[in-house]
Amino acid sequence: MSSYSPIGPVVGVVGAGQLARMTQQPAIALGVELRVLANAPDESAARVIVDTRIGDYRDLGDLRAFAKGCDAITFDHEHVPTEHISALAADGFAVHPGAEALVHAQDKAVMRERLTALGAPCPAWARVSGTEDVTAFAAEHGWPVVLKAVRGGYDGRGVWVCRSVADAEAALAAGVPLMAEAFVPFERELAVLVARSPHGQGVSYPVVETVQQDGICVEVLAPAPGLDPEEAAQAQRIALQIAHELGVTGLLAVEMFDTGHGLVVNELAMRPHNSGHWTIEGARTSQFEQHLRAVLDLPLGSPAMTAPVVVMANLLGGDDPDLFERYEHVMAHDPGIKVHFYGKQVRPGRKIGHVTAVGDDLDTVRARARHAAVHLTTGEYT
Amino acid sequence: MSSYSPIGPVVGVVGAGQLARMTQQPAIALGVELRVLANAPDESAARVIVDTRIGDYRDLGDLRAFAKGCDAITFDHEHVPTEHISALAADGFAVHPGAEALVHAQDKAVMRERLTALGAPCPAWARVSGTEDVTAFAAEHGWPVVLKAVRGGYDGRGVWVCRSVADAEAALAAGVPLMAEAFVPFERELAVLVARSPHGQGVSYPVVETVQQDGICVEVLAPAPGLDPEEAAQAQRIALQIAHELGVTGLLAVEMFDTGHGLVVNELAMRPHNSGHWTIEGARTSQFEQHLRAVLDLPLGSPAMTAPVVVMANLLGGDDPDLFERYEHVMAHDPGIKVHFYGKQVRPGRKIGHVTAVGDDLDTVRARARHAAVHLTTGEYT
Repeated sequence: MSSYSPIGPVVGVVGAGQLARMTQQPAIALGVELRVLANAPDESAARVIVDTRIGDYRDLGDLRAFAKGCDAITFDHEHVPTEHISALAADGFAVHPGAEALVHAQDKAVMRERLTALGAPCPAWARVSGTEDVTAFAAEHGWPVVLKAVRGGYDGRGVWVCRSVADAEAALAAGVPLMAEAFVPFERELAVLVARSPHGQGVSYPVVETVQQDGICVEVLAPAPGLDPEEAAQAQRIALQIAHELGVTGLLAVEMFDTGHGLVVNELAMRPHNSGHWTIEGARTSQFEQHLRAVLDLPLGSPAMTAPVVVMANLLGGDDPDLFERYEHVMAHDPGIKVHFYGKQVRPGRKIGHVTAVGDDLDTVRARARHAAVHLTTGEYT
Repeated sequence: MSSYSPIGPVVGVVGAGQLARMTQQPAIALGVELRVLANAPDESAARVIVDTRIGDYRDLGDLRAFAKGCDAITFDHEHVPTEHISALAADGFAVHPGAEALVHAQDKAVMRERLTALGAPCPAWARVSGTEDVTAFAAEHGWPVVLKAVRGGYDGRGVWVCRSVADAEAALAAGVPLMAEAFVPFERELAVLVARSPHGQGVSYPVVETVQQDGICVEVLAPAPGLDPEEAAQAQRIALQIAHELGVTGLLAVEMFDTGHGLVVNELAMRPHNSGHWTIEGARTSQFEQHLRAVLDLPLGSPAMTAPVVVMANLLGGDDPDLFERYEHVMAHDPGIKVHFYGKQVRPGRKIGHVTAVGDDLDTVRARARHAAVHLTTGEYT
């Protein structure tokens, strides 16, 4: 808890991961006093935010105590129970996004129902509760069938690409509510990040390409290379329409499949998103500043790019816990590379940071980002 | 005091003003654990740095307790007694800049002696201890005579432009050690910011023009408009030479007069400097990141500009304490303007923040920065 009186507006962020941590950078500039609800004082954001409260985001009492005195409440993750968010709003707190919007990022079946009703491009889908439902779905739409946990999945967890009944039974054995989606053959994955304020102002960042490995985003290319301008505009219209129809306040990231003959919406997130980390250096207004402006109902900032090409590469933990000794090579090799560490202990596969390169030529910029990411995480010289 | 174990290197900053506060932004990205020595928990940097220690920078015991566990020690201001800095270094702490360099930013007479010996362009100068010394100096160099406090002045304080013996006697009445300098008629003021690492790597940012009112910097234009490239290169050579000869580690800001027929060195500062705030958005590596890299002896970052023109305008406090209500107009009027508040209570004339505009055309960019600064500090629409 802090020992000073706030001067600027107070924004409370539930959750203290790297998204809350990176939000502290523009909060410092804007004079916004950030408060986080952390599980422990050594979490990523708790290390850099003075007004850290320790508590349980699943406990309404903890949430109410945390919210007291905040000018706005927002989230580092989607795991706060929807009914608690409604209760905070009923108490009079300004919660952004609100429960009625956020449920679409928490519950994939609710999301699919709503997007289907809106006419947004979705794969065929159905709620499933057992093997019979899955085989019936496969009979209509073919294998593979993608089974997804309706709630709680991320980074590939909670998603099973099933090529047979046996695969489906393994997924069903997880014992969580599932839904089925038709497998979408795609050429690449895109993401559109938009922001919407309570007043209704909306802005869209350029469409980006996200490169995934084993269900985890490893690289983001901004703007999406070679994307037809009309398709890019359509992707931005879809995302802004979803934000408007769902009443999103704050950021909305819309992950899409580019099938080569159209776009299909994959997932929604209503917070700063890995696909938008490139905006810290690559856009006039970073996604973290934009989110703060939106949840405080301030006019939104310019999403214009600061350079023709920006590439972000995630740093996934390897075996060696000491990354800092590798700064020497990376910084000397490329004085323009930007390194972001999240203040997390290294664990294999864990997202512990990212690097960003900015420039004019995609191949050059991408090679720079990869070089830094490979060296920082493995020590290899490429 | 923090309740977690550091993961990254720990940098201790003595002083908790806006310079330490803005250093927290790149520290978050680099995973550097910042610690500050503050006078009180509500100071500018203490509001955004978890590991804030309260103590007296004039007390060697407080400094030693603060330094324990830091991988490097640096400064938010020049007021730490030189002998305490030497004592910390003798204890084995990595202090950057060291006492032998920093004394040139603390003591103007020592600075003049050394720069004169190095052949750097300086005005005529002399130590003075009474009216007789000043009149003798004026007899040789003419009026006005600029009297300066040898130690402790900033933002125009501790500087007296004397046009007569009566003026000089008023300055002498301050009762602090003084020196005299010949008045330099100048066309404009320039500043060069360079960084030097303990390994001896040096980089220079582009030369900027600083616009002063009543001895306080109100505006910085990057790069200095219309500066002859040879004169710009000379200014950078002078600054890098001073950094090298004085053994500066960290940043060195060199303020210069552009007389229209040459350059004259005015002041030195060895820390992030107001004339370098434009680098946060305007250079690939901000001065705050550069300072961290230098004091940790990491390879230095690119000082390249991110756009052709960058203008920074300081926000000086007016009569109205609530600046946040003026965000609406400024952000809606110019979605690309970048606002920085320092988390300080408003007092008339106090530096409470700055704004930065980035673009292609000087007149346009300067007008944008001015519009935002005027509105935020006065509420006027221009």
